[in-house]
Amino acid sequence: MKSIAIVGSGNVGWHMAKALFNANFKICNCYSRNLERAKELAIEVNSRPINKISEIENKCDVILVAIHDDATDEIIKLLDQQFQGKIICHTSGTKPMVNNLQNNESGVFYPLQTFSRKGKVEFSNVPILIEGENKEVQNVLTEIASNISSNVQLINSKQREQIHLAAVFACNFTNHFYQIANDLLASKNMSFDLLLPLISETVNKVKSTSPEVAQTGPAKRKDQKTMQKHLNLLKGNDSLQMLYKLISTEIQNKNNHA
Amino acid sequence: MKSIAIVGSGNVGWHMAKALFNANFKICNCYSRNLERAKELAIEVNSRPINKISEIENKCDVILVAIHDDATDEIIKLLDQQFQGKIICHTSGTKPMVNNLQNNESGVFYPLQTFSRKGKVEFSNVPILIEGENKEVQNVLTEIASNISSNVQLINSKQREQIHLAAVFACNFTNHFYQIANDLLASKNMSFDLLLPLISETVNKVKSTSPEVAQTGPAKRKDQKTMQKHLNLLKGNDSLQMLYKLISTEIQNKNNHA
Repeated sequence: MKSIAIVGSGNVGWHMAKALFNANFKICNCYSRNLERAKELAIEVNSRPINKISEIENKCDVILVAIHDDATDEIIKLLDQQFQGKIICHTSGTKPMVNNLQNNESGVFYPLQTFSRKGKVEFSNVPILIEGENKEVQNVLTEIASNISSNVQLINSKQREQIHLAAVFACNFTNHFYQIANDLLASKNMSFDLLLPLISETVNKVKSTSPEVAQTGPAKRKDQKTMQKHLNLLKGNDSLQMLYKLISTEIQNKNNHA
Repeated sequence: MKSIAIVGSGNVGWHMAKALFNANFKICNCYSRNLERAKELAIEVNSRPINKISEIENKCDVILVAIHDDATDEIIKLLDQQFQGKIICHTSGTKPMVNNLQNNESGVFYPLQTFSRKGKVEFSNVPILIEGENKEVQNVLTEIASNISSNVQLINSKQREQIHLAAVFACNFTNHFYQIANDLLASKNMSFDLLLPLISETVNKVKSTSPEVAQTGPAKRKDQKTMQKHLNLLKGNDSLQMLYKLISTEIQNKNNHA
């Protein structure tokens, strides 16, 4: 079993460390700039907390860097200077794989999921998207990922950035629309819970058919009266009105071409 | 047990008739302008298909009008001229309850769900939003609705139109974002299935917390570099770029006020 160091104790590092620990990997270190946070995670995964990169145990095989994109290149460069013969990979959806490490091999280990600190994540069906600078790295990372998920795929940097963009629409932006719906209901003293069965069914439909077949609503029906009524209800909120118009126009155009 | 006539054999009429039939209501007639469609539904719910309003059986208690909003007022007026002593209600999210029926009583029976013709709908937790011109009508409709759903609520016309608007964001517009994600992936020969675990988790999170707590992603983190990268990837698609900017700005502003 490979020994893994986790650099970063944010949402991704946290859940990844726990999933790997539960799959019986040895988590040799948990690094965070903030030692208290490193300790919090280390306790959960029977590991040694550190706040200096240089203290990563030399016997570890793989270093997973799960920190803010902006700091990733610098940390990986530092790691490359201080260690050798390891696989160093980041966990970012948007960053390309780091090239030209001097003393180590480079890879990517990207779990395609939305993580919040609290709450349990069922990793078993989370797609883990792997990239490696050579076949051997790919194989090692694929083997590790297969222990925590049944959905492991080799994906290159170009594909991964497109997936990440698609994920922003499918996850972050849809969640923002839940927020808008929540606010629209709250403004009339109604609860967001009212919409949960509808939200679940919207997802169920897209699982069994396709977004194109699943589309319903006033824009799909080209029901101008209802759309005008909705725009009137949104009076005073220019940004929501603009969103409503933009998306309704897109749905109607899509429908024309279908 | 009340006897119910269904006017309209579209998505809503279809699923409602089946749910009521399964709950042992007598579906006395299924009306559609197109007799063949009326027959298709009538066979499913052991009913008599008709394509003339006047042929609705006089012994029915409740007439459910589930047709296009634009035609609803006229059909309800016709029904009011030809029948008396019945409850006549529409199933629309946006239309107010019809007032001033001469010979019958008016109500609304609105199932808050997205219906496609194909596919089974589990009605038991679909919110059914009831309105009635008086207590008695409210009681009759609530009683009927309670036989097919455990989530029945009295909601007035003003509230219902706001709910319908919120539902467009939470269902129709999110589904359009699944479509956008689908197209972004398809353009690089990747499958939409890749995103399904993420989409499921996005909904799970909003069920157990709130959209505000559940929000993640570049805009939430105010990660300008990643947002700029995404805008570059969307070059050539002005409408998607505008959407991306609008929503990312909203998420960042929301975050400021939180």
